[in-house]
Amino acid sequence: MESADTIVPGFDAAGIAAHIKKSGDPDLALIASRVPCRAAAVFTRNAFPAAPVLYDRRLLAFNPESVHGVIINSGCANACTGVQGDANARATAEAVELAIGASDHSVFVMSTGVIGVQLPMDKLLAAIPAVTAALCPDGWADAARAIMTTDTRPKLFTHIASVAGQEVRFTGIAKGSGMIHPDMATLLSVLVTDAAVSQPLLQAALTQAVNRSFNRISIDGDTSTNDTVLLLANGLAGNAEIPDEAGEDYAEFVAALSAICTDLAQAIVRDGEGATKFVTIHVNGAANDEQAHRAANTVATSPLVKTAFYGGDANWGRLLMAVGRAGIQVDPERCSLFVAGGPAGSEHLPELQLVDAGQPLAYAEADAAERFAQVEIDVRIELGLGPGSATVWTSDLSHDYVTINGAYRT
Amino acid sequence: MESADTIVPGFDAAGIAAHIKKSGDPDLALIASRVPCRAAAVFTRNAFPAAPVLYDRRLLAFNPESVHGVIINSGCANACTGVQGDANARATAEAVELAIGASDHSVFVMSTGVIGVQLPMDKLLAAIPAVTAALCPDGWADAARAIMTTDTRPKLFTHIASVAGQEVRFTGIAKGSGMIHPDMATLLSVLVTDAAVSQPLLQAALTQAVNRSFNRISIDGDTSTNDTVLLLANGLAGNAEIPDEAGEDYAEFVAALSAICTDLAQAIVRDGEGATKFVTIHVNGAANDEQAHRAANTVATSPLVKTAFYGGDANWGRLLMAVGRAGIQVDPERCSLFVAGGPAGSEHLPELQLVDAGQPLAYAEADAAERFAQVEIDVRIELGLGPGSATVWTSDLSHDYVTINGAYRT
Repeated sequence: MESADTIVPGFDAAGIAAHIKKSGDPDLALIASRVPCRAAAVFTRNAFPAAPVLYDRRLLAFNPESVHGVIINSGCANACTGVQGDANARATAEAVELAIGASDHSVFVMSTGVIGVQLPMDKLLAAIPAVTAALCPDGWADAARAIMTTDTRPKLFTHIASVAGQEVRFTGIAKGSGMIHPDMATLLSVLVTDAAVSQPLLQAALTQAVNRSFNRISIDGDTSTNDTVLLLANGLAGNAEIPDEAGEDYAEFVAALSAICTDLAQAIVRDGEGATKFVTIHVNGAANDEQAHRAANTVATSPLVKTAFYGGDANWGRLLMAVGRAGIQVDPERCSLFVAGGPAGSEHLPELQLVDAGQPLAYAEADAAERFAQVEIDVRIELGLGPGSATVWTSDLSHDYVTINGAYRT
Repeated sequence: MESADTIVPGFDAAGIAAHIKKSGDPDLALIASRVPCRAAAVFTRNAFPAAPVLYDRRLLAFNPESVHGVIINSGCANACTGVQGDANARATAEAVELAIGASDHSVFVMSTGVIGVQLPMDKLLAAIPAVTAALCPDGWADAARAIMTTDTRPKLFTHIASVAGQEVRFTGIAKGSGMIHPDMATLLSVLVTDAAVSQPLLQAALTQAVNRSFNRISIDGDTSTNDTVLLLANGLAGNAEIPDEAGEDYAEFVAALSAICTDLAQAIVRDGEGATKFVTIHVNGAANDEQAHRAANTVATSPLVKTAFYGGDANWGRLLMAVGRAGIQVDPERCSLFVAGGPAGSEHLPELQLVDAGQPLAYAEADAAERFAQVEIDVRIELGLGPGSATVWTSDLSHDYVTINGAYRT
């Protein structure tokens, strides 16, 4: 958790229990800005976007320059809820705008939880005065906790970076531990910064940062109807506004934004539903980056690969089997495979080569088993064809994943 | 199990323990034809085909008209085994040709089991005299048993059909309960028939039948390096040879072949690794059949959908979520969803509609829960866009799937 000293100035946060969740756990978070912000966002590509996603897309198009905050509920996704769901998302935003004294069309809405159930609007609206009253600069930990569903830990980071010669800050929260897959915005994340960046550049930077972070993780290959990453920038750092993508200032900003997004993304994988392992899949030598990403992704989402990681089973043939069905250009005679691994947060064992140009090597079984038994496993697949490379982070597939998802609603 | 009276005449089968498996369970099967057969086959599309797949592809191209049998081992896939693996596949075929007195290049080879390990050729070659000696017309049950890996039951069917006014027979065995996915040939299946069909037509018919059966099932979305379906036809039924695709005779043959393939394919799903449910996914109203198939497939392979089936959880939002990420044309406002279900082998409950044109219906939760709690669940998704439709059969994702695959090699 971060202290109030380091978080981005100008924002207040809160998280309370509105009793949308039967458990009574916190389920309503509010992030509010004292000054108008610029906003950028990345949304799910699922063909069934939830009502809040539809609402936020319209809001972002209509008013990206003068935003005052975001209200987030957990416990109900407000997805597949038809016209009633759309009305409920709008009513929620309007109630918050009224409560915090913000202008019309200045508050975003996010929801996460069960699909196909209407929001309990009586409870939600009744809780808005309380969540507004709870707003304070160090309310981020409460907010991070209130957006959790099957997450076991809140995810909150603050980074300080130098952009355009000026110290700027980033604070971000995220939730998500299932229905997570690259090539989509991940589940919910709210990022705020005090950097001054024009709105089109803010959007470009967020898209780039999400591609390097949230779009590189996979827990189960499924993608939510609600995935949203929202970035609010209030400009209070006082840096000279970054005007275009040409200079070094923009590169610094993207790098800093990518860093906090990567921390949040990796925290999501580490807290993946039932996850017991953190696995990094590197694919190099593909025909291009897109093919490398597809290969890494197919490995990262293969149930057979993920159960082998869970069991600590050095069943490396499954890794190549997954690459082989990725639908990319592969020459088995050029393919090599390496594995490493180690404890979290300390040095990993050196890489062990298992396959060299299509031929299995006579490695010692104990050496392979030792690596697959680690909590963090690193896989490197060399395709030997071209310059394409990609890295994807994933978790294993455990008994607990099945338990959690077999009875999510009950 | 079938009696020797009904199986296809002219073929002998056997299954014995060659001690390739540590367990001592049967692991070597031989199917031999007393007369030369025509052969057709469908192979995996995985980019890392196993050595026996490479061998069989060459053999089918070289000699599709005068085939004498197939040798199949379980316990070792001979996949990702480099040049040594290629030599071992060839040596196995040659040893069987010698043992059964068949001409050169007339015996196919199949392997299934762990990837990346060389065949124990000493054990395998030493067992060939014994498996040859065991050949007999009613050895099919032994053969079906010897090709099992994580299968819990042998899969053997015999069908009698009328083709070109003549009674013809089909006998088939199959194995496979993990690494199974549509759009590829499934795991191993050997089919024999006494119908007289020209070789090019035999291949066309097998491809069609596989597309209607084995390519419509999914257990875990993974695809093996070894998947092979082989069809041998000895012509002993004495029907007038089917000469082309134009007439009704060919349609009858494809229908009969599809029927036995569907029985085998559904038996594989019912015996899927850890499977506790048999789920049928119908998608109608897609822009075309290919899009319908992709949607049905995405639903059938979604870990969140499959764990909900396992838990008997009426979490139908996950079904739409999966359709939404299938990458097909979808209009949420036209999408409707129905569910039914029942016990295996008896009448199912009537369909319950959950969503109508994008709007969730006020169905009784108990009615939905009752259907999702059945051993067989039927899902129908209507996209309302076009004439495309597809049906896919799948299983649930259970704790046992994780147990089986977390420690497959150990």
